[in-house]
Amino acid sequence: MKKIIARIAFGMAAFALASAASAQVKPEDQIKYRKAGYSYMMSWNMGKIKANLEGSYNKDQVAAAANAIAGIANSGMGALYGPGTEKAVGGQTTRVKPAMFTDKEGVTKVAVDFNKAANNLAKVAADGDAAAVKVAFGEVGKTCKACHDQYREE
Amino acid sequence: MKKIIARIAFGMAAFALASAASAQVKPEDQIKYRKAGYSYMMSWNMGKIKANLEGSYNKDQVAAAANAIAGIANSGMGALYGPGTEKAVGGQTTRVKPAMFTDKEGVTKVAVDFNKAANNLAKVAADGDAAAVKVAFGEVGKTCKACHDQYREE
Repeated sequence: MKKIIARIAFGMAAFALASAASAQVKPEDQIKYRKAGYSYMMSWNMGKIKANLEGSYNKDQVAAAANAIAGIANSGMGALYGPGTEKAVGGQTTRVKPAMFTDKEGVTKVAVDFNKAANNLAKVAADGDAAAVKVAFGEVGKTCKACHDQYREE
Repeated sequence: MKKIIARIAFGMAAFALASAASAQVKPEDQIKYRKAGYSYMMSWNMGKIKANLEGSYNKDQVAAAANAIAGIANSGMGALYGPGTEKAVGGQTTRVKPAMFTDKEGVTKVAVDFNKAANNLAKVAADGDAAAVKVAFGEVGKTCKACHDQYREE
């Protein structure tokens, strides 16, 4: 739990320091990377867990997918919302809403909720109990939706 | 170590079963997801580790980046090289060489080498010794290059 808190704290610090950290990554690459993390890698791994919960359950596949999601969640993606990434740039489109860059309190809440839920899913998935994974998976889904509802255009 | 071997074994099994597993994911999405994992998420996180090794070293950032890389490496990306992903499809381009789909032995070797190196980097990064991370990071880089040299067009 200490580790989880430390990771979330780091994630938050990364977000707060987005301007500094993202200076090294071009705005269009920040958008590309954040889409790769959320829309592609996380979607793919969430989809695998969903398929396991709805079909035959492979503990190793679910644990691996949950670890990938948690690993990405903990990697400081907040740094990919730096200046110049509020709208399409360099051929990269984005559905991010302006509030993502102004509502610090709200963004911190969805980020912390998501990281906690993702880390919990990885922990639960390691134990291999499908019923518990179903609950933890639903919790992650809720945090995805909370962020999309508030900070992403349809 | 047992866990690492188990993960690699699972990765290999995932690769072997690519046809079955990838049936659920459209070929163009498989290409999109594998590019997201390798070209975007891993590049970004490798870049962060490199920046830490060349500048001021933040143990937490390096550990988080290494965990993201390992998490993705262990997620069974072999399943994203299913039938129909040998060439551009549905607007998704790919630089994959035909040998990726025929050289089973060679592909297994680069995949196992990469997974081992990525898991070792995560382990070493957790300890926080920058000199050791530099070595482990170099080993991961070599396995990236080995695969690109053999199975990716320039």
